Amino acid sequence: VIEPTRLSLNQATVKALSLPDAIDACVAAGISSIGVWRDRLAETGVAEAKRLLDAAGLRVSSLCRGGFFTAADAHADNLAALAETAALDADVLVLVSGGLPPGSTDLAGARARVADGIAALVPRARELGVRLGIEALHPMFCADRCVVSSFGEALALAERFPADTVGVVVDTYHLWWDAAGPDLIRRAGARVFSYQLSDWHVPLPADMLLGRAHVGDGSIDFRPMTDAVIAAGYTGDVEVEIFNERIWAAPAAETIAKVQQGFTAAMTSN
Amino acid sequence: VIEPTRLSLNQATVKALSLPDAIDACVAAGISSIGVWRDRLAETGVAEAKRLLDAAGLRVSSLCRGGFFTAADAHADNLAALAETAALDADVLVLVSGGLPPGSTDLAGARARVADGIAALVPRARELGVRLGIEALHPMFCADRCVVSSFGEALALAERFPADTVGVVVDTYHLWWDAAGPDLIRRAGARVFSYQLSDWHVPLPADMLLGRAHVGDGSIDFRPMTDAVIAAGYTGDVEVEIFNERIWAAPAAETIAKVQQGFTAAMTSN
Repeated sequence: VIEPTRLSLNQATVKALSLPDAIDACVAAGISSIGVWRDRLAETGVAEAKRLLDAAGLRVSSLCRGGFFTAADAHADNLAALAETAALDADVLVLVSGGLPPGSTDLAGARARVADGIAALVPRARELGVRLGIEALHPMFCADRCVVSSFGEALALAERFPADTVGVVVDTYHLWWDAAGPDLIRRAGARVFSYQLSDWHVPLPADMLLGRAHVGDGSIDFRPMTDAVIAAGYTGDVEVEIFNERIWAAPAAETIAKVQQGFTAAMTSN
Repeated sequence: VIEPTRLSLNQATVKALSLPDAIDACVAAGISSIGVWRDRLAETGVAEAKRLLDAAGLRVSSLCRGGFFTAADAHADNLAALAETAALDADVLVLVSGGLPPGSTDLAGARARVADGIAALVPRARELGVRLGIEALHPMFCADRCVVSSFGEALALAERFPADTVGVVVDTYHLWWDAAGPDLIRRAGARVFSYQLSDWHVPLPADMLLGRAHVGDGSIDFRPMTDAVIAAGYTGDVEVEIFNERIWAAPAAETIAKVQQGFTAAMTSN
């Protein structure tokens, strides 16, 4: 069982809301943790955002996101993301690796660049006390978005670095199909820095990025992954993060109520 | 290097052609092997198909396909597929496992049914001298088409059965993202029963099934997988199998010429 008090609303789930409005919505719904996105953070400004978050008494479960190491200006942008993560006292900076450079088929080379890019961030992350969470995206995003395509690969990458600084993100949408997933999560232990929930609904829409469903509305059995996250010793907040045009078009309060119902049903069935 | 003489045209690549027409097209192009689909085989009839294949001097690299073990009538249909494979003297019967039953989230249960379904086929396969090739589909098809979602999972499943009867299919489209793929292919050794090629092109179309590209037109580096297939000792035919509406709409002779060019370029670059 993961208690409903550990629910964090990832801001992407209520994409239409500004950060101040998302903070207010969390407070209104009795949610005490939020996952923040950098584009919305930039609109509000880091100092004002921190003031609003503190006034609301919200924990920041993650900052989304850094990475995209195969892009030219990645390092400078990631240093800025580290500073923002520290300023918000967020639990983790989520790293999505980026895909293949346009026209390239050099997957091994892209993966090497990701490893080098993370290595270049680790010293500054340690100075700031920021934790980096490597997120493997579903393999269907390997070419264009994230060459880190499996949880096992993300974990092997994290294990090259100090365990208090570099860990992994467990995201049910990206990982649910992986027969090796639960065992790998257990093995990750204290390297599990984040646990994110959404469901897989078929058929996927034309834009595969937006195919996520409310927890409980799709094909995923959350129990094996949740059991493994608990066994790994993870005690942090658990985010619901849903990218879905239809859900984005719904009233935020309705979406949040559904998030709370889905979370409670899935996280207390173990 | 894999010689061009080992190219097999999987019939799905020229979907508009009947089996007799596909056979003629192979002969016209100097291709000496074909992968046959059961729907087209049924139109022609097994005996007539065998006569035409022999007259043309074509090898049959695979029969596509059996499996779908999570459906109610799977066993009887798979027994029929075994008989057809034997009658055509095809190298392998390709097994695609089937997805989750409608409304189900019991992935572990579905996978157990697949294992049971294969076990039930093995005695008859051995009597007939038919080899069963388990194909892991890309994880994006896990819910609705194939719960065997990684090459490692397919191999572990095959390894429960005699090595001369149950093996695995290496398909670049489904496997290319997997960092563990090449090592697992090497480990599979004589269990590699088939090698199938197509490329991954982004963005995928709305129907993800139809997103495959001609070899060389997408994001895949074929060398690591080809090297591993060679190291595994595989000496059979190598199929090009492409599902793509645009390619299906092109003249078959044009498609086949492009298949031959792509195959030769990719298979002789090692």
